[in-house]
Amino acid sequence: MFSVTIRDHMMIAHSLRGEVFGPAQRLHGATYIVDATFRRATLDADGIVVDFARAADALRAVLSELGYRNLDAEAGLAGMNTTTEALARVVADRLADHVRAGALGDGAMELDGLVVTLHESHVAWASYERPL
Amino acid sequence: MFSVTIRDHMMIAHSLRGEVFGPAQRLHGATYIVDATFRRATLDADGIVVDFARAADALRAVLSELGYRNLDAEAGLAGMNTTTEALARVVADRLADHVRAGALGDGAMELDGLVVTLHESHVAWASYERPL
Amino acid sequence: MFSVTIRDHMMIAHSLRGEVFGPAQRLHGATYIVDATFRRATLDADGIVVDFARAADALRAVLSELGYRNLDAEAGLAGMNTTTEALARVVADRLADHVRAGALGDGAMELDGLVVTLHESHVAWASYERPL
Amino acid sequence: MFSVTIRDHMMIAHSLRGEVFGPAQRLHGATYIVDATFRRATLDADGIVVDFARAADALRAVLSELGYRNLDAEAGLAGMNTTTEALARVVADRLADHVRAGALGDGAMELDGLVVTLHESHVAWASYERPL
Amino acid sequence: MFSVTIRDHMMIAHSLRGEVFGPAQRLHGATYIVDATFRRATLDADGIVVDFARAADALRAVLSELGYRNLDAEAGLAGMNTTTEALARVVADRLADHVRAGALGDGAMELDGLVVTLHESHVAWASYERPL
Amino acid sequence: MFSVTIRDHMMIAHSLRGEVFGPAQRLHGATYIVDATFRRATLDADGIVVDFARAADALRAVLSELGYRNLDAEAGLAGMNTTTEALARVVADRLADHVRAGALGDGAMELDGLVVTLHESHVAWASYERPL
Repeated sequence: MFSVTIRDHMMIAHSLRGEVFGPAQRLHGATYIVDATFRRATLDADGIVVDFARAADALRAVLSELGYRNLDAEAGLAGMNTTTEALARVVADRLADHVRAGALGDGAMELDGLVVTLHESHVAWASYERPL
Repeated sequence: MFSVTIRDHMMIAHSLRGEVFGPAQRLHGATYIVDATFRRATLDADGIVVDFARAADALRAVLSELGYRNLDAEAGLAGMNTTTEALARVVADRLADHVRAGALGDGAMELDGLVVTLHESHVAWASYERPL
Repeated sequence: MFSVTIRDHMMIAHSLRGEVFGPAQRLHGATYIVDATFRRATLDADGIVVDFARAADALRAVLSELGYRNLDAEAGLAGMNTTTEALARVVADRLADHVRAGALGDGAMELDGLVVTLHESHVAWASYERPL
Repeated sequence: MFSVTIRDHMMIAHSLRGEVFGPAQRLHGATYIVDATFRRATLDADGIVVDFARAADALRAVLSELGYRNLDAEAGLAGMNTTTEALARVVADRLADHVRAGALGDGAMELDGLVVTLHESHVAWASYERPL
Repeated sequence: MFSVTIRDHMMIAHSLRGEVFGPAQRLHGATYIVDATFRRATLDADGIVVDFARAADALRAVLSELGYRNLDAEAGLAGMNTTTEALARVVADRLADHVRAGALGDGAMELDGLVVTLHESHVAWASYERPL
Repeated sequence: MFSVTIRDHMMIAHSLRGEVFGPAQRLHGATYIVDATFRRATLDADGIVVDFARAADALRAVLSELGYRNLDAEAGLAGMNTTTEALARVVADRLADHVRAGALGDGAMELDGLVVTLHESHVAWASYERPL
């Protein structure tokens, strides 16, 4: 099994609902260092898992919809607790939409799965893994 | 599949038994940067894999029993070669005990598995993965 | 010249005023990985630059006043553009206040200077350096 | 499941064939930070996954055959697009050859699998995973 | 004193002349992770050291002239041994040209100095520091 | 001003004397990731700060005298509290001895200074800087 990972980041504001979050119930924010991993059993004719430039563009597009925003006010995330793990899924699912819409090229239809990891600090990170 | 990882560390002295260890047969020591990963198929009602603060406390508790000690003199590790890979299992198993004892809350009973990685330097690390 | 550095972090929301900031004029947020460096020409009788535990506590205290908050609403930062470089100075100056108030012990009076670095992502960071 | 990872690196020149590679079709180069992970279900009598020194030597030997070279001129890679993902497989397969030839000792015959990750920059890396 | 650092990278091929370089006398290559640090005694009216976006663009422009190339064939580097330390100076000097040409804005005329660090691997890097 | 940095590591056991050290008064240990920085105003005829291979060998030689040992029992460190900052000086001073003895070649006589940084964990490190 092959995989390729691309790193990018986004900076957001949000608050979390629930006593379990302690001071993070207040409006605060985070830089998420985002690693998107694309998995595939065999390489394509060019010897790659995915067109790196297109994959980076798709990741950038997904992060641009979330970054430099207050997630508490985002219609697309309404009613959701935007925890690191939940956001990892949002990024992965939106990236999967780009793959299925052909934004990463025909070769990307052969991808087997996707993992998205969001690093919220040097001591904490969360991942979501899904098939494609 | 979701996962959340918490990083902490411990500093220990020990020696290793066996010719394969060369100079590491002498009494020496290590800083282990410890990454504990908690895995779960679905998020709980708060949108999390595990209560982060409780998980960090449990990891801290496990590492406090080992840290700032000479592992060669620890009764709980008697007869064991405290290699990085063996210590990864010790940390994972003790963390699993905390989960089962309820220290991470009722939600943690839904956890599927645990991975513990011990980084002994910038060029070497070991992991142990187990179900919960 | 000796130095000792301690790493911690804080997570905040804020917005920046000025066209130069582009989308960062919107309410967003950041994780700042904070490195506080203490400098001193000679070591004290214990062979250290500063009492590490007290220094870590002082840094934690300074970051706790800022973390998990919307800096736009903080009275102590009113009228200030809370850029990474400006916040590096805020942290350094408040840490210097702790040193002068004796919170790091008598030995810390011998410190020559302080550097505070705030990493806002894996590709950008800012520092402020000052004498003590 | 246990694993042990060793990090090393190599510096190579190469060019890539195919429009998808854009400017990387020109002769350029890369430093690959290489992580080789050895997996095993149980530890051996010494409490290890693999003899660390022998594994590091085998990885060094594999990387020495590729490093400080123009891969476009390497007979062993003729006709191959030496992408990061393709090179991850080359390193993994050659390392597997060393294991099967006994270079890592008899214990290494119990290894279950191998993962090789090549980091081409701080924002991109590729992996190849295979059984042993 | 304030500073701001921006990280980017470039991938090049080259060879080094001189017995001291051993196998690096052969045509090979490197990924250089490049950190450009801008220093300034006081912040401007926006509370910044330099316009981050313009500084990042200038660094990108400098690296684009070198990246994805065989430096042995670059007219602008003819007769020069393109060691990591020498390239750090090339990048710093070219960046200084951008500053003086006004590409980073009028505020950048107040910059005191520049440091450029090129990381050639996880175990080696070189810097060049100059006034502005 | 130019500089070149080489990273290596050592693993040691020790204990610290003084109430200020809390649990670190017990016998424990550390992995020190060691960065040795060599500074020089101008490059030599080969375009380098120092012969990298010789510098790496000298650093390895210094660390080999300390690594895989219990520093409490080392005659050369008798009576010394082997704190991270004190060890940074020991490494720097011994490295300076190698430079002066000619182990890094004649060119190394032009070096202006040396900085040694010892990282004891991902959240703490200490440096010692000296002229040559």
